Amino acid sequence: MSTDDRPSYETQHHPLSWLALRADQRRAAGLRRTLVPRAADSALIDLAGNDYLGLTRHPEVVAATIEAVRRWGTGSTGSRLVTGTTELHAELEAELAAHAGTEAALVFSSGYLANLGVITALAGRGDLIVSDSLNHASLIDAARLSRARIAITPHSDVDAVAAALAGRAEERALVVVESLFSVDGDTAPLRELHEACRAHGAVLVVDEAHGFGVAGPEGRGAVFEAGLAGEPDVVVAATLSKALASQGGAVLGSAELIAHLVDAARSMIFDTGLAPAAAGAALAALRVIRRDPGLPETVRKRSWEIYELALELGLQVTAPSGAVTSIIMGAPEAAVAARDFCLERGLHVGCFRPPSVPDGKSRLRVTARADLSDFEAEQIRSVLSDLAAIPTQV
Amino acid sequence: MSTDDRPSYETQHHPLSWLALRADQRRAAGLRRTLVPRAADSALIDLAGNDYLGLTRHPEVVAATIEAVRRWGTGSTGSRLVTGTTELHAELEAELAAHAGTEAALVFSSGYLANLGVITALAGRGDLIVSDSLNHASLIDAARLSRARIAITPHSDVDAVAAALAGRAEERALVVVESLFSVDGDTAPLRELHEACRAHGAVLVVDEAHGFGVAGPEGRGAVFEAGLAGEPDVVVAATLSKALASQGGAVLGSAELIAHLVDAARSMIFDTGLAPAAAGAALAALRVIRRDPGLPETVRKRSWEIYELALELGLQVTAPSGAVTSIIMGAPEAAVAARDFCLERGLHVGCFRPPSVPDGKSRLRVTARADLSDFEAEQIRSVLSDLAAIPTQV
Ligand SMILES: Cc1ncc(COP(=O)(O)O)c(C=O)c1O
Ligand SMILES: Cc1ncc(COP(=O)(O)O)c(C=O)c1O
Repeated sequence: MSTDDRPSYETQHHPLSWLALRADQRRAAGLRRTLVPRAADSALIDLAGNDYLGLTRHPEVVAATIEAVRRWGTGSTGSRLVTGTTELHAELEAELAAHAGTEAALVFSSGYLANLGVITALAGRGDLIVSDSLNHASLIDAARLSRARIAITPHSDVDAVAAALAGRAEERALVVVESLFSVDGDTAPLRELHEACRAHGAVLVVDEAHGFGVAGPEGRGAVFEAGLAGEPDVVVAATLSKALASQGGAVLGSAELIAHLVDAARSMIFDTGLAPAAAGAALAALRVIRRDPGLPETVRKRSWEIYELALELGLQVTAPSGAVTSIIMGAPEAAVAARDFCLERGLHVGCFRPPSVPDGKSRLRVTARADLSDFEAEQIRSVLSDLAAIPTQV
Repeated sequence: MSTDDRPSYETQHHPLSWLALRADQRRAAGLRRTLVPRAADSALIDLAGNDYLGLTRHPEVVAATIEAVRRWGTGSTGSRLVTGTTELHAELEAELAAHAGTEAALVFSSGYLANLGVITALAGRGDLIVSDSLNHASLIDAARLSRARIAITPHSDVDAVAAALAGRAEERALVVVESLFSVDGDTAPLRELHEACRAHGAVLVVDEAHGFGVAGPEGRGAVFEAGLAGEPDVVVAATLSKALASQGGAVLGSAELIAHLVDAARSMIFDTGLAPAAAGAALAALRVIRRDPGLPETVRKRSWEIYELALELGLQVTAPSGAVTSIIMGAPEAAVAARDFCLERGLHVGCFRPPSVPDGKSRLRVTARADLSDFEAEQIRSVLSDLAAIPTQV
């Protein structure tokens, strides 16, 4: 279109005027979102967040975070490669690797950026990425950004993964999954996936965002539990923002892998290092878990109780491997109504609608916490019972 | 390739064995990187970080950060859409928007993710992104991820931008630049770029990572200084990790834009909210700047002094618009040697090599801080004089 054919600024639509139209469409589809700031002293029972072990207000974690701010200041001041690596970062990386059973670890400023960094550093044009259909947005974005060919396989379908690997023309391939899937809360068949990878010379990349600190003995993760920690063809990504009560992400693997990421992971090289407060919080949370290894088991038990209750009440519910249970509601409006019903009765549960979940699968996402009291468990029972009794309930 | 043609795992190369080879190639090219943890009590003069206003250890900023941890806990616990928005986040957003002169703001967990979020939410397949050749990695990744067609224009070449816009077939277009470019430290011709955008119905997206808190009156940014704050076709991205002494990023613009991002920015929707400590730090830093609006001017003055000194010493140097001066050294080895020379003499300066900068343009990156003392300025003069006197100096 040449300049002459274009209306002047005054008469044409504003170049962002389509935003209003798009907002109207979303409103009509029941898909508008708003940010609702929460108060520090909210009386709600939190079953919506990912503070699985209840450590964000643990006195030791709070004290260590404050100490990190005092000692290191309020920001890391630069890229990890320049001024953004403190001794605290190095200490955190050593202890993360020790807990996961890997040689080394690299901390990123978020789990999202850890996924972008590791996948784009390991795969590029001319490679193949086999991606589970329920993978998290950060893994999808990472695969897109890598420019590798992407084969999406049905959820946790090992045969499909093997077939995609066997049929490939590319030499290099990554198989990318979550260990505990974030929305349904189920576990990937890690051992079988690893066998398929090994049979076909591929690398298995496992996002343990919801597994690290929750699954496996002492919360060492589902990869550790599957006996795959330290395998040369397995790469683990994790986040510090859920069980570890902080913010940030990490990649865990061989020393060679981590050295490669230092050279090649754009989302680490061109990003400010994690703030000292967040590094200190994650390190303190990790130490609490290592000292009290019953915590991960406690949250899994609480989650299983919620599942059994929902099942008993006739709700359509998914079995949790970790801390997450989903109650499927169907239409987005039904999920929002159920969420609001719980909220009015003092229960904050998550509400997932498209595009976070497939159409027709809008749901409540109920996350357990290791620090839920028996009294709170009773309240949960009472509210979910009332919810299940509503006639319009699907 | 069929399974039968492939060697077994035992005899074939390990699927990540190429990492060692790649490391050797990097070593040979002088491009290996390592993380060097810094101590809390380092005696080095920091001219490498991006703590431009020296606020990461400011008593008020430290105190507010500690208060945020005490009040809100060590993590935000979830996505901004679920539990990750606290009243502190809302307060920060309101004051950021007020300072930038825009209707609204949205905080992300990093500047990197803010750029990914805003650009992918505004452009997609069938759109055009006109991207400056020196744009930051996060802007490049954002453009790639959007799947829009990308036209790369020579650095700060307004005619090329206008031509790319005029010659496009796409209806929608974004022009993406940094306000103060991160490596050379020069300013984009924002007014002229905006004229070109307006003439051609495009949106101007400006990354103020190095401008916000540094450029313009009271550090309101280069967009404000250019008279473009609040224009409906201008979108600002910023980071909280540099002048604001924290971690995190923000997008600043119309209320309609921000509402759209809440609905559509994947890197916010699918990411844990910024930790309360980081939100508290950025808010406190912003308040310090608003109370002491001379700070941004001080860092610009210090930076200009370093530039004039380097010029006087015959070094090849770029004129700073904000806090950043580059001393071009040429080959990567020369830049590393110069960096080490300064380090041994108590000066920590940045060292940028490919792929962070073009081949043959390896350099020292010297960032000023508003809190540099006259005594430190004297030391800088002495070390740079010695550096310039080395015969091998290019
Ligand atoms: C599976 C999965 N991967 C990665 C992430 C991103 O981690 P972060 O929020 O720490 O950036 C999340 C959630 O936020 C997640 O659920
Ligand atoms: C121009 C530019 N944009 C974005 C970023 C990313 O910001 P952050 O480090 O806060 O993620 C940086 C630096 O890190 C930058 O220099």
